[in-house]
Amino acid sequence: MSADDSDASATAAELRPDQARARFRRGTRVTTSGYCAGYAQANLIAVPRDLAYDLLLFAQRNAKACPVLDVTDPGERRASIFAGDLRTDLPAYRVYANGVLVAEPGDVRDVWRRDLVSFLIGCSFTFETAMLRAGIPLRHLETGGNVAMYRTNRRCRPAGRLRGPQVVSMRPIPADRVADAVRVSSRYPAVHGAPVHVGDPGALGIADLDRPDFGEPVEVRAGDVPVFWACGVTPQAAIMASAPEFAISHAPGHMAITDVRDTAYQVP
Amino acid sequence: MSADDSDASATAAELRPDQARARFRRGTRVTTSGYCAGYAQANLIAVPRDLAYDLLLFAQRNAKACPVLDVTDPGERRASIFAGDLRTDLPAYRVYANGVLVAEPGDVRDVWRRDLVSFLIGCSFTFETAMLRAGIPLRHLETGGNVAMYRTNRRCRPAGRLRGPQVVSMRPIPADRVADAVRVSSRYPAVHGAPVHVGDPGALGIADLDRPDFGEPVEVRAGDVPVFWACGVTPQAAIMASAPEFAISHAPGHMAITDVRDTAYQVP
Repeated sequence: MSADDSDASATAAELRPDQARARFRRGTRVTTSGYCAGYAQANLIAVPRDLAYDLLLFAQRNAKACPVLDVTDPGERRASIFAGDLRTDLPAYRVYANGVLVAEPGDVRDVWRRDLVSFLIGCSFTFETAMLRAGIPLRHLETGGNVAMYRTNRRCRPAGRLRGPQVVSMRPIPADRVADAVRVSSRYPAVHGAPVHVGDPGALGIADLDRPDFGEPVEVRAGDVPVFWACGVTPQAAIMASAPEFAISHAPGHMAITDVRDTAYQVP
Repeated sequence: MSADDSDASATAAELRPDQARARFRRGTRVTTSGYCAGYAQANLIAVPRDLAYDLLLFAQRNAKACPVLDVTDPGERRASIFAGDLRTDLPAYRVYANGVLVAEPGDVRDVWRRDLVSFLIGCSFTFETAMLRAGIPLRHLETGGNVAMYRTNRRCRPAGRLRGPQVVSMRPIPADRVADAVRVSSRYPAVHGAPVHVGDPGALGIADLDRPDFGEPVEVRAGDVPVFWACGVTPQAAIMASAPEFAISHAPGHMAITDVRDTAYQVP
C-alpha cells in the first residue's frame, strides 16, 4: 500500500504532507487551510530567471508580506522544503501573462519553463494550528471556506521592475481573543507574524469586507473584530501591477504544503 | 556647532550614529563594538550588479549567518537604514579582487563603482547592549579589542557562483551566564540570534582559539565557556572562496553603524 492509498479515512488535518500533495496531484481542488496540522504552508511564485533578482529584492524589502522560505535554482521542480513536484502538487495555480491572469489550472506542466525560479513564501495558514490549540476560533474553518484577502492602500517598497500594494488576509476574531491572536501569531515571524492592522478596514482602503479581492468573504459575527495579517499573495498583486512577461503562482488559499514543521518557524 | 563638533566629551557608547560616522569619515579607525549603545550595527558587502542575485540568494539560503537588513539600488551611497555615505563612513574597509584581499583602506571612494549593490547584513554587536544590560560580561569590551572570528568546517548552502564556509564570532561567557546569553541573543534573530554552538571549538573545526581568522584573539578566562554566533563576515569568506572579480566589504569588526534602534530587530 503506497502513501497515496493509506489516507482514505484520514481527515484533512491528519494527512501527512506527501498524502495531501498526492490528493492534489490527482485533482482535488480545495483551500488548504486546515490541512496537515503542524506543517508549514507556503505561497508559490515562479518567475523567469531574468526577473528573479527583482522578485528576491522585492521580497527582502517587503519581508513582512513576503518572507522567503526557499528559492529554487532555475527549472527545479522541487524545493529543499517541498519534496513534491511544484508543477502538480498544489491544488490550484494561477498563470499570469503580461500581468493578466490567463488561467487557473490544477497543474502547470504544460506551461512550465526551464528558466523558472520558484519562490516559496511564508503563509499565515502555518500559525492556524497554534491558534486553534490556543482556543481561538477561526471562522473560515468553521464554515469550510477560504480566508478573505484584500489589496490595501499600503504600497510596497518597489524593487527593480516590481511594485504593487500590500495584500492582507483577514480573520474575524472575538474581541476578547484579539490579544491572544496577536501573541500566538507573533511567535511565527517567518509566516507573517503579528497582524499589521486590527479593526477598521477603511483605514487600509478596504471599502467592503464582503467583497474580497482574493479568496472568499468570511462572516464577521457580532463581537468579532476584523484582524489583518500581511499576506503572501502580495507578489501576485505586484505581478498584476507591474505586468512582467510571465509568472506562475498558487491560486490564493491553495497553498504548497511543505515538509517542514510549523515549529521550525517559531521563535521563543 | 555641527553634529561633528558636539561630541568631544561623549564616550563611544554615548555617540549618536551620525556622530560616530563623522569620526570614522575623518579617519578614526577602531572596532565599533561598544559604539552607539542601542543602535543596530551592520556588515557591509558590496558587489557588482551582475553578482547581486547570487549574493542575495546566498544570503537567503544562509540566513542565520547572512540576515539581510537592507539592499541598495546599484551605485547608491546611502541605504534606507544608513543615512551616511557607505564609501567613507565606516572605520575601515576591505577591497577584494578575484577573491584576494588587495587593500584595507579607511575610505573606498577611489575604487567605488556605479554598478555596486550594497548589502547591509545584521551584526551581533547589535545585541551586545542588551547583553551588557543583563549583566553578561563581554571580554573583548573589557580589554578594548575586537571580537575573534573563525572560519568553521560548516559549509554554507551554495548559490550561483558563491560558496564558502560559515564564519562565527566567539565570546567567552561565564558558565553560569551561558543560558542568559542564549536567551538574550535569541530575541534578536535579524542580527544572528541564538548561538550556533556552545563549547568545544574543535567540533567546528577550529584548531586554536588564539589564532582567529578575523578580528583579534580574546582571552577565555577560567570558568568561561566559548560561545559561537553565526557571523556576517561569512559573505567575505564566500568572496575569498569563490573569487568573483570584485567586492568591497567592511573590515571585520569595523561595522556600519545604522540609524535603526536595536529594539527594532527584537522579537517578543
